[in-house]
Amino acid sequence: MRKGLLIVLSGPSGVGKGSVCSVLRGRMPELVYSVSATTRTPRQGELDGVNYFFKSRAQFQDMIARDMLLEHAEYVGNYYGTPRDFVERTIAAGKDIILEIEVQGALKVKEKFPEGVFIFLLPPSLDELKQRITGRGTESVDTIDHRMNVAVEEMNLLRHYDYAVLNDEIDQACHRIESIIVAEHCRKEHYLSEFTQMQHASEKA
Amino acid sequence: MRKGLLIVLSGPSGVGKGSVCSVLRGRMPELVYSVSATTRTPRQGELDGVNYFFKSRAQFQDMIARDMLLEHAEYVGNYYGTPRDFVERTIAAGKDIILEIEVQGALKVKEKFPEGVFIFLLPPSLDELKQRITGRGTESVDTIDHRMNVAVEEMNLLRHYDYAVLNDEIDQACHRIESIIVAEHCRKEHYLSEFTQMQHASEKA
Repeated sequence: MRKGLLIVLSGPSGVGKGSVCSVLRGRMPELVYSVSATTRTPRQGELDGVNYFFKSRAQFQDMIARDMLLEHAEYVGNYYGTPRDFVERTIAAGKDIILEIEVQGALKVKEKFPEGVFIFLLPPSLDELKQRITGRGTESVDTIDHRMNVAVEEMNLLRHYDYAVLNDEIDQACHRIESIIVAEHCRKEHYLSEFTQMQHASEKA
Repeated sequence: MRKGLLIVLSGPSGVGKGSVCSVLRGRMPELVYSVSATTRTPRQGELDGVNYFFKSRAQFQDMIARDMLLEHAEYVGNYYGTPRDFVERTIAAGKDIILEIEVQGALKVKEKFPEGVFIFLLPPSLDELKQRITGRGTESVDTIDHRMNVAVEEMNLLRHYDYAVLNDEIDQACHRIESIIVAEHCRKEHYLSEFTQMQHASEKA
């Protein structure tokens, strides 16, 4: 059976990765969404294996030690990471899986999984990104400036990705991502071995 | 202004390149279709610059000598070729252009235009291809065998292409080609220079 694809969707903070992913989920129900592992406590209604794989600190550190995570990071005292096993089982079953992740994490995934399809979500402009970051609420000018500097640094990592998708309009961005997934399935590499089998079948007939 | 793409659609004879192209023409009216140059006499209703660029033999040989064709070939005493100028003016104007061509011609285009997007149309199976070749009419068994051998040889050239599109169902094949075009416009290379300009604009502001 032909393997599925690992699609990594990333981009600077504030660009709208989460919103794009939630619209994409409605448009592409056949796509599997990667489930992260975390050591944080489940919130009400969160299910193990659906929202997160909930782990103890010792379990998580064991996963790190055994190279069972494609990437991991620590935020506010809790670990978060991407279990390799879930990704590998999904693509081995011929299904595509999408991973929504910040830019540093995506680059770590690329080291362990270079055959993934790396998509960078772009804001229409830096002004627009600033408005989105500012629009979130009550941050100080210093915080907004700091976030903008981080975002511009993150944008410089675009060169490590395969595709850039402009998030000017969310449905357009989703259409571009869908097209990238269809196109990646058409890459000739996937067909070269199938064609060889086609020829052998024909020679036997 | 960003340049358009040259899309080269090819595949073994009998695979249905012409049918796919005519459906695509209805679905993607914004796509420009490459117009060939030929030395054959115009048929009734054919217009110069629309159906073909009609040339004298001397004019055509002059175009060959001046490297004004991306590829050319001679069939039944007439020259046919792809004018480089028409392709280059179209993409310089920011429009995508599609060229439907047999596999040998496509490889010649690739030598002169490696930045093109090379799509290989595949039959669902070799049996299906044989049926399509047989179904055309009154060819002898020898002719059919010869055409099948040529087609299998042509299929071996898939490795020189970027994409393989299965022509199992014509609307599906067109959807895949449309997706490839959208995805190719999202390749990060197209955005790296735009992002640099974005940063400069932001620094000046």
